[in-house]
Amino acid sequence: MRSPAEPKAADLDLVAVLHALGDPVRLGLVRLMAADGEVSCSPPHLNVPRSTLSNHWRILRESGITSTRAEGKARYMTLRRDDLEARFPGVLGTILTAAAPDAAVGQGQ
Amino acid sequence: MRSPAEPKAADLDLVAVLHALGDPVRLGLVRLMAADGEVSCSPPHLNVPRSTLSNHWRILRESGITSTRAEGKARYMTLRRDDLEARFPGVLGTILTAAAPDAAVGQGQ
Repeated sequence: MRSPAEPKAADLDLVAVLHALGDPVRLGLVRLMAADGEVSCSPPHLNVPRSTLSNHWRILRESGITSTRAEGKARYMTLRRDDLEARFPGVLGTILTAAAPDAAVGQGQ
Repeated sequence: MRSPAEPKAADLDLVAVLHALGDPVRLGLVRLMAADGEVSCSPPHLNVPRSTLSNHWRILRESGITSTRAEGKARYMTLRRDDLEARFPGVLGTILTAAAPDAAVGQGQ
C-alpha cells in the first residue's frame, strides 16, 4: 500500500501549518502524537466521526505536520518534529507548551 | 464611538489565535502591526477588498490578537503582544520570526 503524499521539509508553509493547528480536534491529535509518539488513525477515547477524523488527518498530513506509516489497512501517524523545528524554529514547541494546561483531546470542543 | 468588544487576556483561546493566524492576509496584517505598531483598518498597498479586510480584522480582534482604537470613523489596530505573551509565551514571537523571510504583506496569496 502506497504511503500518502507529504510535502518536503523545504516546502512546508507556515500559514498551512497554523491553519492545521487552529482547530481543537487537530490540535488535540498533535498533542496526542507529542505525548505518545506514533498514533493510530482512530485513537481510542476520541469522540469524532471517522470521516471527520480522516479529513483532519489529511489536513495535518498535507500541511506537513505528520508523517504516515501504512501497515496493512491501518495508518500510523507521527509528528514531523525535526522538519517543523528546522523550518519554523520554536513554533511547534511553544504551541505545545501553551496548549498543555488547558486543552484536552477528545472533548470535541 | 464605542470600541469593539475584545476578549480579556485571561479568556484568550489558543485554537482561536492559531486559526486567526492561519490565513495569509491575517498573518500579513499581524506582521505589519509587528513592524509598524499601529495600523489603520485600510493599510495602503494591500490588494484586498474592504469587506474582506473588515472580516479579517474582526477575526483578529475576536481572537484577542488586536486592540482597536476608534478615532472618528477610522479604526487603528495594534497587536496585544503583552497579553499574548503572558498567555502563550513565545508563540507569537516564534511565528513572527518564522514568517519573516518568506511571507509578504499585500500579495493576496
